[in-house]
Amino acid sequence: MGRETPYKIGLLGSGSWATALAKLLTGKGYTIHWWIRQPEHIRYLKQHRHHPRYLSAVHFDLRKLIFYESAAELVARTDLILVCLPSAFLKAVLDTLPPSAFRDRYVVSAVKGMVGETHQLLNDFLEDRFGLPQEQYFNITGPCHAEEVAAEKLSYLTVCGKDRAVLERIAPHFSTPYLQTVLSTDVRGTQYAAVLKNIYALGAGMAHGLGYGDNFLAVYIANCALEMSRFNTAVCGTQEEEAAPQLLSSAYLGDLLVTCYSSYSRNRRFGNMIGKGYSVRAAQIEMDMVAEGYEAARSVYLLNREIAAPMPVATALYQVLWEHGHPLECFTSLEKKFF
Amino acid sequence: MGRETPYKIGLLGSGSWATALAKLLTGKGYTIHWWIRQPEHIRYLKQHRHHPRYLSAVHFDLRKLIFYESAAELVARTDLILVCLPSAFLKAVLDTLPPSAFRDRYVVSAVKGMVGETHQLLNDFLEDRFGLPQEQYFNITGPCHAEEVAAEKLSYLTVCGKDRAVLERIAPHFSTPYLQTVLSTDVRGTQYAAVLKNIYALGAGMAHGLGYGDNFLAVYIANCALEMSRFNTAVCGTQEEEAAPQLLSSAYLGDLLVTCYSSYSRNRRFGNMIGKGYSVRAAQIEMDMVAEGYEAARSVYLLNREIAAPMPVATALYQVLWEHGHPLECFTSLEKKFF
Repeated sequence: MGRETPYKIGLLGSGSWATALAKLLTGKGYTIHWWIRQPEHIRYLKQHRHHPRYLSAVHFDLRKLIFYESAAELVARTDLILVCLPSAFLKAVLDTLPPSAFRDRYVVSAVKGMVGETHQLLNDFLEDRFGLPQEQYFNITGPCHAEEVAAEKLSYLTVCGKDRAVLERIAPHFSTPYLQTVLSTDVRGTQYAAVLKNIYALGAGMAHGLGYGDNFLAVYIANCALEMSRFNTAVCGTQEEEAAPQLLSSAYLGDLLVTCYSSYSRNRRFGNMIGKGYSVRAAQIEMDMVAEGYEAARSVYLLNREIAAPMPVATALYQVLWEHGHPLECFTSLEKKFF
Repeated sequence: MGRETPYKIGLLGSGSWATALAKLLTGKGYTIHWWIRQPEHIRYLKQHRHHPRYLSAVHFDLRKLIFYESAAELVARTDLILVCLPSAFLKAVLDTLPPSAFRDRYVVSAVKGMVGETHQLLNDFLEDRFGLPQEQYFNITGPCHAEEVAAEKLSYLTVCGKDRAVLERIAPHFSTPYLQTVLSTDVRGTQYAAVLKNIYALGAGMAHGLGYGDNFLAVYIANCALEMSRFNTAVCGTQEEEAAPQLLSSAYLGDLLVTCYSSYSRNRRFGNMIGKGYSVRAAQIEMDMVAEGYEAARSVYLLNREIAAPMPVATALYQVLWEHGHPLECFTSLEKKFF
């Protein structure tokens, strides 16, 4: 069995990032309780010791994995629950849990989007629905493409939480020689940054697909960073207990950069197809993967109707993705607004 | 002859950026008085209508070019002088000019480094040596890889000057449908940003050469942006008449990004060779091009001995480039300092 830790660690989700986290944590010797939606993926993992779709070079020590077909059962049997699901499926999974599911539990979110039709951050949704105190909620973020973390390329993970003492106990679970952890109490701001960067990365791909070059892309991203800073100042400014957003750090600018520039970025690939003339629907079918930026564009658009931060880029991208705006016209209108 | 403009435009230099600017300005119909150090390059240009080394797809209308073999003669015959020289050769060229050379002239600098052994910004050097009033000095900067500007890919050029009225007359000379101009009065800060970004791009190449991945590179650049902001706040803080540095703009973050990420960046290529194990000398011979970041690392190091801004990245890179520091040790020590 796995190494001792004060926590029984549960993992909800089996995408590439969940798979990389399972590899990292079992590699440290921890036992992982792992819920995977598709029973056939569990069977495949048990037989082949690697995930059928993601990071196939990663082989698991099966003695350290306990699989669950029921999310409710996993949550009942663990006390530190890693939520690592695409935001599009998040609500459907959480709907299967009883109201008391998270009592006396810590949640660590690796989610990069907002929840369901209420477009809430996960901490707010969990508080409303399950009564989870904000102090029991943590989130992990930063420029961590799963492929590189799995390949043990040095990366930085920002671990955020309001309860500093628990934060300091939880964060070291993720720390390895190739994953350096950074602590932050900016729970809300770092989550919004993770949502926004996917929208902007989708736009970066769109610009590339439209034929813009490196010079323009750099100007685009600098203006996106400014827009992110405006939004987070507006949205977190009302939260006095939150730390000030630290824009020039790995969780903000770093994550924006890797998502906009890296060839691993699915949001960028998705946007690139839109820029090249694919319809949103056709790009979704072609990708067969979730591009978080698509849903995020709508969530942020709706949220910003109240906040009213100046967000020309996010607004223009929303119009292309959700209101049949034309990509080239969208960018032509943005060109004049950049500096 | 060229289109009418209130200015007789002189151009000092014939690197790739100078060639792109000559193309842009003659393309707008202006006559350009062009000093090129190598007489054989002038002969080549007259015969083949394109530059022998740079942007060979760019063909010039010779009726719009007047060539000079003497920089002093060019400066004497023009009144808006574009200085577009590698900083390493700058002082040698300026030394050939008489003390009154710039009287009643405007200088527009495209220089990305400091001048000679005094490590001054060009405006300060020209004031000391030629008595050029600061109000007659302008600089152009931004993410403008010459290759893309020559290919008419949309780019953004920040034109800076203290005299707002003259700035508004000069800037439109550079504006085209594919080059959007942005005005700024932050002469000093934008020049330092242009110097610093070459150092950081050299480091980005070094990190790549050492085998770091995209996740790390993004964290590195975010931390470089923070360091740039610290330096510019410290160095410009004493200059109350200067505008506050606008970090999230094309002239700062945009230029840093394109220089760190673009395959056109010679600083990045130079750093990559160092990271792969070339000595500084061997990399210089192999490149046969000037990597501005090399000299800039020393200038900034010396300058920062007075300013004392916390600059772990620039200091570590200086040690590798100038004091035989080992690239891997340099980056291993930096890893711990990033967040």
